[in-house]
Amino acid sequence: MPVNLQAPIADQLKAVKGVRLGTAEAGIRKLNRRDITLIELAEGSRAAGVFTQNRFCAAPVQVCKSHLSLTSPRALVINTGIANAGTGEQGVSNALATCRAVGELLGVAREAVLPFSTGVILEHLPMDRLVAGLPAAQAALKDDGWFDACHAIMTTDTLPKCISRQVDIDGQIVTFTGMSKGAGMIRPNMATMLGYLATDAKLAQPLLDQLVREAAELSFNSITVDGDTSTNDSFILIATGQVGEEIVDEASSEFQILRAEVIDIAQWLAQAIVRDGEGATKFMSIVVEGGKDRDECRKVAYSVAHSPLVKTAFFASDPNLGRILAAIGYASVNDLDVDALRVWLGTDGEEVLVAEKGGRATSYVEEAGARIMKNAEITVRVDLARGDAAATVWTCDFSYDYVKINADYRS
Amino acid sequence: MPVNLQAPIADQLKAVKGVRLGTAEAGIRKLNRRDITLIELAEGSRAAGVFTQNRFCAAPVQVCKSHLSLTSPRALVINTGIANAGTGEQGVSNALATCRAVGELLGVAREAVLPFSTGVILEHLPMDRLVAGLPAAQAALKDDGWFDACHAIMTTDTLPKCISRQVDIDGQIVTFTGMSKGAGMIRPNMATMLGYLATDAKLAQPLLDQLVREAAELSFNSITVDGDTSTNDSFILIATGQVGEEIVDEASSEFQILRAEVIDIAQWLAQAIVRDGEGATKFMSIVVEGGKDRDECRKVAYSVAHSPLVKTAFFASDPNLGRILAAIGYASVNDLDVDALRVWLGTDGEEVLVAEKGGRATSYVEEAGARIMKNAEITVRVDLARGDAAATVWTCDFSYDYVKINADYRS
Repeated sequence: MPVNLQAPIADQLKAVKGVRLGTAEAGIRKLNRRDITLIELAEGSRAAGVFTQNRFCAAPVQVCKSHLSLTSPRALVINTGIANAGTGEQGVSNALATCRAVGELLGVAREAVLPFSTGVILEHLPMDRLVAGLPAAQAALKDDGWFDACHAIMTTDTLPKCISRQVDIDGQIVTFTGMSKGAGMIRPNMATMLGYLATDAKLAQPLLDQLVREAAELSFNSITVDGDTSTNDSFILIATGQVGEEIVDEASSEFQILRAEVIDIAQWLAQAIVRDGEGATKFMSIVVEGGKDRDECRKVAYSVAHSPLVKTAFFASDPNLGRILAAIGYASVNDLDVDALRVWLGTDGEEVLVAEKGGRATSYVEEAGARIMKNAEITVRVDLARGDAAATVWTCDFSYDYVKINADYRS
Repeated sequence: MPVNLQAPIADQLKAVKGVRLGTAEAGIRKLNRRDITLIELAEGSRAAGVFTQNRFCAAPVQVCKSHLSLTSPRALVINTGIANAGTGEQGVSNALATCRAVGELLGVAREAVLPFSTGVILEHLPMDRLVAGLPAAQAALKDDGWFDACHAIMTTDTLPKCISRQVDIDGQIVTFTGMSKGAGMIRPNMATMLGYLATDAKLAQPLLDQLVREAAELSFNSITVDGDTSTNDSFILIATGQVGEEIVDEASSEFQILRAEVIDIAQWLAQAIVRDGEGATKFMSIVVEGGKDRDECRKVAYSVAHSPLVKTAFFASDPNLGRILAAIGYASVNDLDVDALRVWLGTDGEEVLVAEKGGRATSYVEEAGARIMKNAEITVRVDLARGDAAATVWTCDFSYDYVKINADYRS
C-alpha cells in the first residue's frame, strides 16, 4: 500500500514536443503484460545520464553509456521481465542487437538507441520474442504515450509513477514530463530504478550533463528502501530542443527556472519510489543538519535509514529513540560528540525534541512521540552541532510485506 | 527457531576454578524473571575486554573500560531489562553506584567491579530495586552457577548459550567455560552482544590483551544478524590463574593450545548468537577468498551478509544468484573484476560452482542450487581471484519473524 501516492490520471500527463512513446507485449518473461516501451526522440534532441555504481554493471547500462558518448540519442528501448545483468558477453551482444533492431525500424543508427532492462538477473533476453515485439511498439508510438509507458516499465511497483509540469520560460510554455519505476533494491547510487525526465526546452549539452548529476544526487541518490544497489539503475534527462531559444548560460534566469523544475520533478519521482517501497506503510525523511560536510550528514542519514531495527520500529509506530540513537552512533563518524547532538521527531505541523545531552530530552514525553509516529509521514531531524552542512535521505519502513514480497518474487 | 543450536545441559558445563556465579530476580523491568547475574573472581584473576565501537557507548561500557584500566577485576555484575545507554551523566553515576554496591557486598574496591547492562535503551536503571536484588545474587554464588547465569543474561534469545571444554596443558587439566547472549542488533564491532569466557589457566596480561582482540576479530566481530551495532557490546576474557604455571611466552606450545581453544569457543559462542538470530531459519557462512587483503574480503562478505534481498531469498530457499552477485558488486571494492571472480553455493558434503565470467556458470543447473538451499546450513564461497587474503562472516536469513519480533519488542 503506497504511502500518499496516487496513480497518475492520463489527462494530467502532458506530451513533450519531440517525444513519442509506444508500448507492446513481447512475452519476455510472462504473457499478457506490456513489457516493451519504445521512446522516439526528434532530431536535435540531447540527453545525459547517471548510472549504477555496482561493479556488476548490467549489459544495457554498459551499452547505454557507450552510445551516449558517441552520438545524440534518437530512441530509448526499455524491457521489463529480465534485467540482462550478470550475462557476460552474450548479454552485451543482446543489448547491441536490441539497439540495432530498433535502429532499423526507426531508420536511425544503432548508436542512437539507448537500451534499458529491468527484472530478474542472470537470465538471457529472449531475443526472438523481444525483436518480434518491437514493430507493435513502433506502431503504438504517440505524443501522449506517457500514461501507457509508465505502466509498461513497472516490475514490483504497485502504482505507476509519472508527473508533468509546465512553466513559462521567456514567454514560452515549456513542458516537463518524467516517469520512474522501482520499489526494492533501492539505495544510494541508485537501484533497480529507472528514471526518465524529458523537456522540450533546448539546453546546451554541458548544462544538461551538469544538471543530470546534480538532480540525481538530490533525488535518486538520496533514497533507500533496503540498502541494496542494483545492476541496472539509470536516470536519463532529455531535452528535445523543440521550444524556445537554446539555454547556454548557467547564471541565466532561464536555466535557474529549468534547473529548479528538473530537481523538483526528479525528487518527486525518487520519492514516489520510496512511497511505493516494497511493503512500505510509512514515508520517512531523515534530515541531518549541522555537519562538518555533506558526506558525514549522508553517512548519519543512511545509517538511520538502513537500520532494520529503526525501520521495524517505524512499522510498529514505536518511537524507539534508542534504535535511532544507536544508528547515529554507529554511522562511522568517528569523532561525533553524542552529548552535543540533538534529535527531533516530526510530522506535518508538529515537531518534538526527543534527545539531547546523550539521552532522552528532559522535556520529552513518550505520548508526544507516540502521537507523531501514528502518522504516515514522519521526519527524523538530527542536528550534529558541528558545522553548517546538511543532507536529507528518504526511506520507508520495514514490514511483514517486505519479507513476503522478496521471499516470493521469483515464484 | 534456532538453527542447529541446543540448550546446554547443566552437567556438561564445567566449573572454572576461581569463578563463582549467582543470579537473582530484581524486577528491573519485568517481574518473575532472573535479571541480575553476579560473577565473583578469585584474587589474582586477570581479565581483558573488547567493546562496542558505537559512539553512543553505554554508561556501563564506559565504566567497564575505565575500571579494567585501573585494576584487576574481582567481580562482574550483569543486568538485563534496561541497557543503561543514552542515559547521560545519570547513567554513568548509576553504573558506578552499581559497582560500589557490589564492591561493598563482596568486600572489594568499586574499581574491581565490571558492570554490564542489556535491554532497552534510554531508560534509567531502577537503582533501588537493582541494589536490593544484589544480596540474593550474592547468596546464590556457586562454582557451578554457569547454567543459571547463561539463562539470566538472555533478552530476546530463545535459548541460552554456554559451552565448556577441558584440555590437558602440561599435565594439568585446564577448564574453559564461556557464555554469550544476543539475537538482534548484531554486526561487526559487536552488538547487543555480551560474551564471557573464563579459564582457570594463568596467563600473562599482555598475552590476555592480545588474545581477546584476536579472538573477538575472528568471532564476535565476524557475525551479523541485522547490521545494527549496539551501544553495549562487550566480550570479556578472564584467566583466574588457579591452574598450572603462568604462560608468558607467545611462542610456547602452552599458549598455542590455549589460544586455539579460546578462539574456537569464542567462535562457537558468536555463531550461537547467529543461530539464535531473531527469526532465523538458516545459518549462512559467507567465505570470501582470493582478496588483496582481509579488509576487502570482509567488505564483500558483509555486503552479501547484510543484503535484505539476499537474506529474504535464503529464507525462501531461493538460489537467487542475481542478488548475491549484485551484493558483491556494490561492496565498494572499486576495481573488482567481476568477470574473474567465481561463486559457489555449498552445504555439508556438496558444493556447486554457480557463477563465473560475469554470469551464471555454464555447468550450473538451478536444480543443484535449489537442492543446496533446502538445507539449514549454507555456505556462499566467493573467490575474488586477485590475492591470497580471506575472511569469513556468519549470518542468518531474514524472515517474517524478524519483523514480528522487532516490531513488537517493546510492547
